[in-house]
Amino acid sequence: MRSYGETIFAEMTRLATETESVNLGQGFPDTDGPRSLLEGANRYVLEGVNQYPPGPGRPELREAVARYRKRHHGIELDPETQVYVTVGATGALAASLLSLVERGDEVLVFEPMYDSYAALISLAGGVRRTVPLRRDEATGRFTLDPGELRSAVGPRTRVMIVNTPHNPTGAVFDADELEEIAKVCRENDLIAVTDEVYEFLTFDGLPHVPLATLPGMAERTLSISSVGKTLAVTGWKTGWVMGPEPLVRAARTVNQFLTFSANGAYQLAIADALETEENWILDQRDALQRKRDRLAEGLVEAGFDVRPCEGTYFLMADIRPLGFSDCEELARALPSEAGVAAVPASAFYDHEEEGAHLLRFAFCKRDEVLDEALVRLRRWH
Amino acid sequence: MRSYGETIFAEMTRLATETESVNLGQGFPDTDGPRSLLEGANRYVLEGVNQYPPGPGRPELREAVARYRKRHHGIELDPETQVYVTVGATGALAASLLSLVERGDEVLVFEPMYDSYAALISLAGGVRRTVPLRRDEATGRFTLDPGELRSAVGPRTRVMIVNTPHNPTGAVFDADELEEIAKVCRENDLIAVTDEVYEFLTFDGLPHVPLATLPGMAERTLSISSVGKTLAVTGWKTGWVMGPEPLVRAARTVNQFLTFSANGAYQLAIADALETEENWILDQRDALQRKRDRLAEGLVEAGFDVRPCEGTYFLMADIRPLGFSDCEELARALPSEAGVAAVPASAFYDHEEEGAHLLRFAFCKRDEVLDEALVRLRRWH
Ligand SMILES: CSCCC(=O)C(=O)O
Ligand SMILES: CSCCC(=O)C(=O)O
Repeated sequence: MRSYGETIFAEMTRLATETESVNLGQGFPDTDGPRSLLEGANRYVLEGVNQYPPGPGRPELREAVARYRKRHHGIELDPETQVYVTVGATGALAASLLSLVERGDEVLVFEPMYDSYAALISLAGGVRRTVPLRRDEATGRFTLDPGELRSAVGPRTRVMIVNTPHNPTGAVFDADELEEIAKVCRENDLIAVTDEVYEFLTFDGLPHVPLATLPGMAERTLSISSVGKTLAVTGWKTGWVMGPEPLVRAARTVNQFLTFSANGAYQLAIADALETEENWILDQRDALQRKRDRLAEGLVEAGFDVRPCEGTYFLMADIRPLGFSDCEELARALPSEAGVAAVPASAFYDHEEEGAHLLRFAFCKRDEVLDEALVRLRRWH
Repeated sequence: MRSYGETIFAEMTRLATETESVNLGQGFPDTDGPRSLLEGANRYVLEGVNQYPPGPGRPELREAVARYRKRHHGIELDPETQVYVTVGATGALAASLLSLVERGDEVLVFEPMYDSYAALISLAGGVRRTVPLRRDEATGRFTLDPGELRSAVGPRTRVMIVNTPHNPTGAVFDADELEEIAKVCRENDLIAVTDEVYEFLTFDGLPHVPLATLPGMAERTLSISSVGKTLAVTGWKTGWVMGPEPLVRAARTVNQFLTFSANGAYQLAIADALETEENWILDQRDALQRKRDRLAEGLVEAGFDVRPCEGTYFLMADIRPLGFSDCEELARALPSEAGVAAVPASAFYDHEEEGAHLLRFAFCKRDEVLDEALVRLRRWH
């Protein structure tokens, strides 16, 4: 782990704060989740939900999670043995990878990838094998090449990490892509660990299809989601793993010594809101779609080339039309020069040159904040 | 990690709930911390502190931690680089041990020991060497033997875990014991990781002396504490590591991929309460001392032999005078037979036979709850 410094998200948020920049770097909204959620948490605190919850999570939340997975995706989960609450999706990924990956095991990851995947694979003593998501010239989408995926599998490959909707590219894997992934998992007896934290943030009517719903995948998939993005409370640090009992039990075994439990009152408030705030969740999705378009148009006007975005709350923008070629240099200069912070896409790549021309902008911000960022970017260039 | 099932605390709490027992097993109070703390958390939630806090923690909390360590123990800490917020002491231990222990490193631990130490050492690929705390026949205290401590150190020993006030024995290491520990650390260039979560729960005027205050120890000690016990909100899952910048940075490097951050609003409320609720903290300590005496007297009346307790909120009781010799068997039977739950001390031992005759009872409960447990225990036997 020696080579890991401060995460790029922490660094960029710090830089944004120091320069009073508009922060379109780290992915967090600037308005909070529904009022009933916040007030619910407060009510439970005053009612005395302040001591250790059960390590696997409050039954109320585990049941609410099982119900929404059934309602939205037709997945049946036993809340007692197949749902387990963690400290956010980060905590879920840590528990999953540290329990499933043994020393020398190979783990497949699509590149670009969220930074914690690589760090956790290293911490577990595993070896990562990356499979590139490449730009399809016809559609502009980031997509996988089935041949490249298959040839990345070797005899020591044990786990595949599948993140859809995908951060940072904004890709939402379609039926064909998911079937390719499922086939490789089935044929090579791999366990899939999915990161589905943007499951409710898909646009233009595109569905999010959990990998666990594909034939033969339920028994080999540990699915991860969380409240942060779904209900716009990224600081509440509450997530969950879902899947077959042996995989959930493995994650639990490790998690009880990593954090023991997530905090209690929030779990109850989240359980309530997952049922009562469905409309808020759908409205947020629609609002984010409009924000995506607002930011995309403005970035194009400012001279960037913008990639299509099907989900998440991130846009990838090509900096080459503006005459730049090194996104890290630009990302470090932009806060002081333009008063805007973004994340260099190279941070998501092992092969940094692949992302060198891309900046990731978050659009989960109030319209006036997006507009201010765009004014600043136009003024800067 | 395959051999690790559900933790003993989780198991006993579950058993207690199922049998409607008085739960004197898992250590958590049945009344919550000060009202201002709870209301503070709620205020910050409504004011909008619901997104990612900085990974290392809110500056307000890091400064409050630095101030109380100075106020109570005369320790100087730079809040920016020497204090780092974690998901409880469990999260702090995980980050510390997973960053400091490398494959094959030996770690010294006093036995009996809190269960997560052994699990985390294994997860890090380390090897644990236990040093027994033995009952001093004259005083009844659990104490260490300097010769045994020294002979446990070998060429691969790198870290010593020091927990004082000590769970489960209730021992508070005195000046001589701490000096023996410090000497061994200095002479063998060991890093000490301290678990000081009961730092404000020492009785009869005994001081808690942080190991970091001993000569030559500040630069080699990573100290851990948390809010759970100090302010009676074990479910808030907020702790901190404190120490020299290189050790804190190591813990941070791992922690940002285990949990990324602890949750935000609670951090601000805790920062306030660490300053404004000093009296509450001292009153709680005094109340716990009275509860210790109440439970100890009652357990003696019920036929147990009770060990002295200098700190924490746990009492060790010898079951042999009642005709038992296997505390695990008894702990599993007691909920249904007597309607009382306690923790078998063997769970804290590698050498289980050493703890086979001891049950650990928590006394952080309302007086009427302690009394009800005692009535039930007398009725049972
Ligand atoms: C945990 S900080 C990173 C937040 C995030 O999901 C992102 O910006 O990609
Ligand atoms: C994290 S559950 C264990 C609580 C505790 O500190 C104890 O009972 O020893």
